[in-house]
Amino acid sequence: MSVTDVPVPTSDDVAAAADRIRGHVRRTPLVEVASGTFGVGAPLVLKLELLQHSGSFKPRGVFNRALTQDVPSAGLVIASGGNAALALLHVGERLGHAVEVFVPETAPAVKIAKLRRHGARVHQAGRDFAEAVVASEHRAAETGALLMHAYDQMEVVAGQGTVGLELGKQCPDVDTVLVACGGGGLAGGIAAWFDRRVRVVAVEASGSPTLAASRAAGERVTISVGGVAADALGASRIGAIAWEIARRAIDEVVVVPGEAILDARRRLWDELRICAEPGAAAPLAALVGGGYVPEAYERVAVIVCGGNSDPASLS
Amino acid sequence: MSVTDVPVPTSDDVAAAADRIRGHVRRTPLVEVASGTFGVGAPLVLKLELLQHSGSFKPRGVFNRALTQDVPSAGLVIASGGNAALALLHVGERLGHAVEVFVPETAPAVKIAKLRRHGARVHQAGRDFAEAVVASEHRAAETGALLMHAYDQMEVVAGQGTVGLELGKQCPDVDTVLVACGGGGLAGGIAAWFDRRVRVVAVEASGSPTLAASRAAGERVTISVGGVAADALGASRIGAIAWEIARRAIDEVVVVPGEAILDARRRLWDELRICAEPGAAAPLAALVGGGYVPEAYERVAVIVCGGNSDPASLS
Repeated sequence: MSVTDVPVPTSDDVAAAADRIRGHVRRTPLVEVASGTFGVGAPLVLKLELLQHSGSFKPRGVFNRALTQDVPSAGLVIASGGNAALALLHVGERLGHAVEVFVPETAPAVKIAKLRRHGARVHQAGRDFAEAVVASEHRAAETGALLMHAYDQMEVVAGQGTVGLELGKQCPDVDTVLVACGGGGLAGGIAAWFDRRVRVVAVEASGSPTLAASRAAGERVTISVGGVAADALGASRIGAIAWEIARRAIDEVVVVPGEAILDARRRLWDELRICAEPGAAAPLAALVGGGYVPEAYERVAVIVCGGNSDPASLS
Repeated sequence: MSVTDVPVPTSDDVAAAADRIRGHVRRTPLVEVASGTFGVGAPLVLKLELLQHSGSFKPRGVFNRALTQDVPSAGLVIASGGNAALALLHVGERLGHAVEVFVPETAPAVKIAKLRRHGARVHQAGRDFAEAVVASEHRAAETGALLMHAYDQMEVVAGQGTVGLELGKQCPDVDTVLVACGGGGLAGGIAAWFDRRVRVVAVEASGSPTLAASRAAGERVTISVGGVAADALGASRIGAIAWEIARRAIDEVVVVPGEAILDARRRLWDELRICAEPGAAAPLAALVGGGYVPEAYERVAVIVCGGNSDPASLS
């Protein structure tokens, strides 16, 4: 692989992020389940990050960037129709910044209506996420607003890494973390924090295997995406930062089919009354389906990273 | 009030129950939320007991009784159409005991079908819960099965009290616990554990205010019940054990209307992606509606005690 000069966050950056965002984010709890639960032959520790503000881990990174940079009066702008946009709305409200959100022209009306109900100025621009990002960049240049990226900025990845830092404090004997991967902000941040002290397994949905495809190609590639978890994991390209981190600190990539994700989501409800979004059930799907088989005595943690989906689909 | 000779569990009994059921129940996590969350002007600690096996706190008491007594080959029998029945099924499966469930003739077919799907032998008997209890007593006498009560047996109340014991370990500086009250098994058990070291506030639904009505009358009274939380809190009479404990160790009773319960349930979902059953949202409703107003610096815990309701009602 070629040497690049993409700067990536270190564990020190993650520790600094944790200090910076303390008091702004929730310390999300762990729940331990016995071997046999979900049909998995090992005890598991689940980190319930779906209890975070706005229903996903995303505010950690957004807070970290917004508290690191001087935010101009034009506020914050992002391209996202999903959890990053909800997180931006939360952060803008808490810190008193104006926010603007760019979504692709193809974004469902219901999603746009939801963002507007939460008080966002929403613009439709571009045929896909990549084009919406370009539109958000133009807007930032035009208004002077601070540009936010859903997963590919230093402060964002460092902020997401605080999920790993918290987990390490709450469960000091953890050996392995399974974490969902789309653009790689969360998986990259956690891997940056643990820096090979703990095994990090990135779990991707078969509809959007950005890291697996890039590993196979030996370089970052752009793929077409879809599937049951596309709303949260449907980046078409792994972030440059996550890609750099993954080279040294993500041990394994497991790809799980959509049906396995929905099955794992159902098991989270049946066993624990947890209403995860599909993407957040991907790590458990890797365990249920045998894509990742823990060794005896391996202490395994699973990040349940979001809960922004319709609970009616579980009734 | 008259002196009675109803034996009640002590904090020692609760501690013994915790030792007995360890390994059989989950240690459910806490999540802390900042002042202002839910519109409540105090930080709160929520104990997520809805993550317990079978979706409510009930297995604690059932395990404790089943592990204290010799269980005959006829197994365990209970009257309940709700959480106690689901808990009994779980315990029976784990400990290898046959189980039988008595529900009133008025029990909805969907609830009976659900119990049967879980493998229970279900009998319909009696016009209400009290008559189903009598039928379960006859059955126990006939078969020799160990009779279980949903909330009014020593070992059951002691087992439910382990929720308080755990909470005290997880949050040693707790001043006040708000807990839902129907038959009073959980509220009584928690009050027995803390034994006035911590303020215990029982929260009842306006459709089934068994403790409030009995306090007003100066003795246990039977009331007619209904309302949004009747499936979990709809006992028509406070348990004799809970009544005795409440005299000395339950500081306050707050009654909340059904609409306030549904509103609090909605807030749990909007803020935390927690899908509580209505009865389990009653304690939060007391805080949201001002039925209980914490003092400055009061450390308040809220028990979210069950999640057995249709998530579609939150979509």
